[in-house]
Amino acid sequence: MSAKREQTERKSAPIGVFDSGVGGLTVAREIMRQIPNERLVYFGDTARVPYGNKSKETVTKFSRQIVRFLETQNVKAIVVACNTASAYALDEIEQELDIPVIGVVKPGAKVAAQATRNGKVGVIATAGTISSKIYTEYIQGINPDIYVVGKACPLFVPLVEEGLLKDPVTDEIAMRYLSELKDIDIDTLILGCTHYPLIRSTIGRIMGEHVTLVNPAYETARELKELLEKEDLLNPMEPALGTNQYQFYVSDAADKFKTFANSILKYGILSAKIINIEEY
Amino acid sequence: MSAKREQTERKSAPIGVFDSGVGGLTVAREIMRQIPNERLVYFGDTARVPYGNKSKETVTKFSRQIVRFLETQNVKAIVVACNTASAYALDEIEQELDIPVIGVVKPGAKVAAQATRNGKVGVIATAGTISSKIYTEYIQGINPDIYVVGKACPLFVPLVEEGLLKDPVTDEIAMRYLSELKDIDIDTLILGCTHYPLIRSTIGRIMGEHVTLVNPAYETARELKELLEKEDLLNPMEPALGTNQYQFYVSDAADKFKTFANSILKYGILSAKIINIEEY
Repeated sequence: MSAKREQTERKSAPIGVFDSGVGGLTVAREIMRQIPNERLVYFGDTARVPYGNKSKETVTKFSRQIVRFLETQNVKAIVVACNTASAYALDEIEQELDIPVIGVVKPGAKVAAQATRNGKVGVIATAGTISSKIYTEYIQGINPDIYVVGKACPLFVPLVEEGLLKDPVTDEIAMRYLSELKDIDIDTLILGCTHYPLIRSTIGRIMGEHVTLVNPAYETARELKELLEKEDLLNPMEPALGTNQYQFYVSDAADKFKTFANSILKYGILSAKIINIEEY
Repeated sequence: MSAKREQTERKSAPIGVFDSGVGGLTVAREIMRQIPNERLVYFGDTARVPYGNKSKETVTKFSRQIVRFLETQNVKAIVVACNTASAYALDEIEQELDIPVIGVVKPGAKVAAQATRNGKVGVIATAGTISSKIYTEYIQGINPDIYVVGKACPLFVPLVEEGLLKDPVTDEIAMRYLSELKDIDIDTLILGCTHYPLIRSTIGRIMGEHVTLVNPAYETARELKELLEKEDLLNPMEPALGTNQYQFYVSDAADKFKTFANSILKYGILSAKIINIEEY
């Protein structure tokens, strides 16, 4: 194959996106919106969800298995659309691969470091992401004077998955989780878990208008676009009609995934295939 | 080895107990209380918890791997201390093993069928256990005239694990989940998930004094004792001093397991070993 034809084929290859479950679909949605020519292969690890309360070793092992699966799909780049996996496993994955890999943590951290005016940034996320201190590390790598406060919010994911997006119970739990961040007067808050944008209005109302909410899903899609441009990997044209532009794989319970996906993505997912991820 | 010596060794072998995580410790606690001479090997699948929202196929696969691990520990009997695994995988496991196997569903169902006076029984459990309709099947197998109503309560486990055992938020969520069971005037309620006994007082207060709460953990330990007696497998004497009577294994995050276990069991667990369950 000629070098030119090879590069053309590479450009039209899909982007691999993975998450512990359905949450990463908020990242996939942003990618679809911002770079609509791209093909995606999404994997949600619904058999082993959630990752947020599991150890670095376990999350890294699971992430490696998923990367090996995505490689079989000939992806041209990988998006780790899970904050916990980005916090725990991104460095290892980057070292082992020769295609571009992007996590959701760095893009969110960068924008937060730029957005803060009073130098006080809050991060809400799962217990795993918070205890990794990864957001603090990245933000202070950009500006060591910024004070970063993390707060684990373990009930937000089950509340979102139970559909209580606008509900007094979610308000009450959010007020408890967020009160200490309000007390220290942060002016920027990172929604450091892919489920949290779905309760963005509740969080915004409690924090007040003067607090900038940073959505890493949005920033990640933007950074992915820049990265693909730089590497000359953007797909120059829309996939032909009849191409399966978006493909979805899960490790369990494909029907439930489809239902949730269809509520997030606002258009129909025809199928989500179950694969045995432990074999990779 | 003589047949007599072999039987003596068999009697002193441990009982294998497993759950998707920490919840099954409420069952282990009852076994320790009711048959204090027995040794236990407990496995909590903390790397893949929870099971309640996963499919029958996945839960059965996970359960088989755990049973293979417990067999390497030479257990004399196995207790499936997880309602979802009991609902989905017990029949398969029983067929494949030649040692006694007991789940938490049948003992709870039996007592509920005996306890009801008005023939209306409620079951609260995870989505998986409820959708399996296993409690209905067992109860109506005993008495087809009993009306059984199941209600999935997906937020109870995260609320318990967040430590909100006595909290207005847990009260509010419990009132919503339980209102339809109150409306149809059940007189017996099965706590069909191993975490629920930890919020028994909240559930009892909402349901009222005229509703009998059935705790399958208690009934399972009682039935296990009877089964071991019948099979002549009860350990006749307390394990010698210095014997490791209770052993704990997990698939991830042993420290967090220990913390939770020590809050439930009321005495110290010295260690919980991590094993790679996917290898079994």
